[in-house]
Amino acid sequence: MSYPTRSTRSLLSIDDLSNSQVIHLIERAQQFKKNEIQAIRPAKPLIVGMVFFEASTRTRFSFEVAAHRLLLHPVVFVVDKATSVDKGESLHETLNTLLAMRPDLLVVRHAGNIRLEEIMRKSSIPVVNAGSGVEEHPTQSLLDAMTVQERLGQIEGQRILYVGDVEHSRVAKSGAKLFQKLGAQVAVCSPKDLAVRDSNVQQFNTLSEALKWCTVCIGLRIQKERHSQATNLSQGQYIENFRLDNKNLAALSSSAIIMHPGPFVPDVDLSDEVLSDSRCAIHEQVTNGVYMRMAIMGDLLGLSYT
Amino acid sequence: MSYPTRSTRSLLSIDDLSNSQVIHLIERAQQFKKNEIQAIRPAKPLIVGMVFFEASTRTRFSFEVAAHRLLLHPVVFVVDKATSVDKGESLHETLNTLLAMRPDLLVVRHAGNIRLEEIMRKSSIPVVNAGSGVEEHPTQSLLDAMTVQERLGQIEGQRILYVGDVEHSRVAKSGAKLFQKLGAQVAVCSPKDLAVRDSNVQQFNTLSEALKWCTVCIGLRIQKERHSQATNLSQGQYIENFRLDNKNLAALSSSAIIMHPGPFVPDVDLSDEVLSDSRCAIHEQVTNGVYMRMAIMGDLLGLSYT
Amino acid sequence: MSYPTRSTRSLLSIDDLSNSQVIHLIERAQQFKKNEIQAIRPAKPLIVGMVFFEASTRTRFSFEVAAHRLLLHPVVFVVDKATSVDKGESLHETLNTLLAMRPDLLVVRHAGNIRLEEIMRKSSIPVVNAGSGVEEHPTQSLLDAMTVQERLGQIEGQRILYVGDVEHSRVAKSGAKLFQKLGAQVAVCSPKDLAVRDSNVQQFNTLSEALKWCTVCIGLRIQKERHSQATNLSQGQYIENFRLDNKNLAALSSSAIIMHPGPFVPDVDLSDEVLSDSRCAIHEQVTNGVYMRMAIMGDLLGLSYT
Repeated sequence: MSYPTRSTRSLLSIDDLSNSQVIHLIERAQQFKKNEIQAIRPAKPLIVGMVFFEASTRTRFSFEVAAHRLLLHPVVFVVDKATSVDKGESLHETLNTLLAMRPDLLVVRHAGNIRLEEIMRKSSIPVVNAGSGVEEHPTQSLLDAMTVQERLGQIEGQRILYVGDVEHSRVAKSGAKLFQKLGAQVAVCSPKDLAVRDSNVQQFNTLSEALKWCTVCIGLRIQKERHSQATNLSQGQYIENFRLDNKNLAALSSSAIIMHPGPFVPDVDLSDEVLSDSRCAIHEQVTNGVYMRMAIMGDLLGLSYT
Repeated sequence: MSYPTRSTRSLLSIDDLSNSQVIHLIERAQQFKKNEIQAIRPAKPLIVGMVFFEASTRTRFSFEVAAHRLLLHPVVFVVDKATSVDKGESLHETLNTLLAMRPDLLVVRHAGNIRLEEIMRKSSIPVVNAGSGVEEHPTQSLLDAMTVQERLGQIEGQRILYVGDVEHSRVAKSGAKLFQKLGAQVAVCSPKDLAVRDSNVQQFNTLSEALKWCTVCIGLRIQKERHSQATNLSQGQYIENFRLDNKNLAALSSSAIIMHPGPFVPDVDLSDEVLSDSRCAIHEQVTNGVYMRMAIMGDLLGLSYT
Repeated sequence: MSYPTRSTRSLLSIDDLSNSQVIHLIERAQQFKKNEIQAIRPAKPLIVGMVFFEASTRTRFSFEVAAHRLLLHPVVFVVDKATSVDKGESLHETLNTLLAMRPDLLVVRHAGNIRLEEIMRKSSIPVVNAGSGVEEHPTQSLLDAMTVQERLGQIEGQRILYVGDVEHSRVAKSGAKLFQKLGAQVAVCSPKDLAVRDSNVQQFNTLSEALKWCTVCIGLRIQKERHSQATNLSQGQYIENFRLDNKNLAALSSSAIIMHPGPFVPDVDLSDEVLSDSRCAIHEQVTNGVYMRMAIMGDLLGLSYT
């Protein structure tokens, strides 16, 4: 896998990937899932620094499981109140320090810090973006694409719908780029306050109309922690108009699928009952996430497989 | 080791184990302790997800050390304020998500959540209960049984006494079941407010009387964090009547032993001076805990030894 | 490497090391850095318990990376509000408990607790001091010596200057001992309130005078968390008189070097601009830290190399 737009091999944005690279990553992840290939233990221990400047549960755990499956050595750094960042050190100097310890790969999540972006971009050590601000979450989009491919046989021609707090969703923004690149159509259905204006993305005003249109419905969490100003939206209105539940999902085709990047807020953006809907692929997304991250890290490190 | 009452092999309760399984686990743990056997590195990396919905120090560390000794790959998930649980996700959905990442074994501690219990019970991946609410802590009971066996030569016929906050102690409840199953008698000596009513368990009113009776004295921590309502008990009264210290322990036979699951509250439920009493087996419990957890995880995963 | 002053092999203080041992450790660390040697996987998994009674970022990460590079198995224990220490357990009993789990090596950082010191001193398991109170930080001093050796060709005859909050700096105190042992001169330049009185250490009253004298300038962080009483020093005064920035560093020779143990407080004890000064060796210190900790742990465990 070559990344011609960078001096080193990194995965920072969906824009870094050609279509053939995406197809390759999905195939590789499928090989891991089907147990067809297995990483050969490298001659020297390879260390994956996992740096979370934003709290994370599932993404951190998913990357760690993936690293162990590849026989890599994850070392985790989570910023919290007890760390040197509170001693006054700047985030970018923290990242430079971790890079100076010479891990073989770095996985970084941050809230959208420009100076961190710049360091990641210039790093001579490969870096994987595990979520940055409201803009990019390439590994999530890739696992979403893998799940669509697996469930529906192909990505091209699908009609992908993102429902909810699109404005603050890096999942939707990375995903819209990826799915369009792969020949799918993308639309959103969101509260006016939380919408995005993108001429390539269709806007639906009502959920029922949107659900009738799509073949893939992706729910999103309201990310209140990223709302920079109060919205006029009440939780009651949000639930009535945007929650994915059995009542609303009656409008969705029986051959369509339901996804959500998780974690979801129960009974606000998704009802528990949806998890037992046969169209629901949410747990498959989680499963596929581990295999996709194996594919990504394995390629960036040039691992060999047996 | 077969667990006939479940669809999969898990250790959720002392009730899951037959007497012969308990004896087998104690023997296996002893083999590890004596360095007679050693785990063979599995052909593929085996991942142990360690999920703590309740804070833990020693139990988490003990399981992690045990996993490494078996050449397994622990991945730890501790719920705290910075995790997705605070983003509003439900605990049971968190657990389902972690299971969807397909670890090879899951170790779970929780505060007694019914829905978590149910998921653990139905899991197709083996699960070890690392402490659940006020009811079960099977790995602690097993290491306690191992320590009694080691120190006193046999478990059958021993007179086991639990001292202190029995009502909130999963250690005492799992232990009472296990020791009775193995042919020991069990009694408690506790403040009235913190007692349990169990017709198989003898109640002592005074510590001196109880200590004269027993061959194994197990102290317990006052678990204030689990007290659902104020008790009438003052700390001064507790110390005077239930603390294990040199003065009170004068009533204990010289051939009896003193145990405590830890952590203890110094000078409340146990005095530091007890640690240098030759009857004290507290640090041996800690040591044995690692070997017992190796035995349990190794058996559930079907590891091979050399 | 033998440690004649102790019953077991441990690195608790710079005083534990002879000159030839220091020289050996620097050479060994250089071999790792140049990729000349590599640890052979031990026959059994070797477990390194990493116990932080004080918060740490870089030191914990550095030791973890070093452990993985040596094919060791780190298990981390960080005291925070969610641990058993808050359940009332004493720190020394926590440490005894972790030792009872029989790791193969223990790395311990603490705030200067006498009883912890005593346990570390008596431990039959080798212990590495990863920073204790305001007195000792031997691994930091060793990596500093390695960096001086690498940049300036030799340590003997250098003029080492510590700038800033010397009183609360274990880095300065361990370093002063080590550099004097190796034949360097040591001086300090610090606010009166934060000075130390040591007849072997020269005191400079002004930074410009001190910078003209030294060949190695080591900045220190103001460690407000260790200030037991209010000082009369304002942050403005500190910045004006002790901050390492381009203006002040004009007095430093072009052949001298600038170091800092990190983390630094940007624009208080060090300006970001210093990082791009060709005399600055701060990131090399971080890189060398991993190799030095490999050398130390490898020797204490008696690892073999290829």
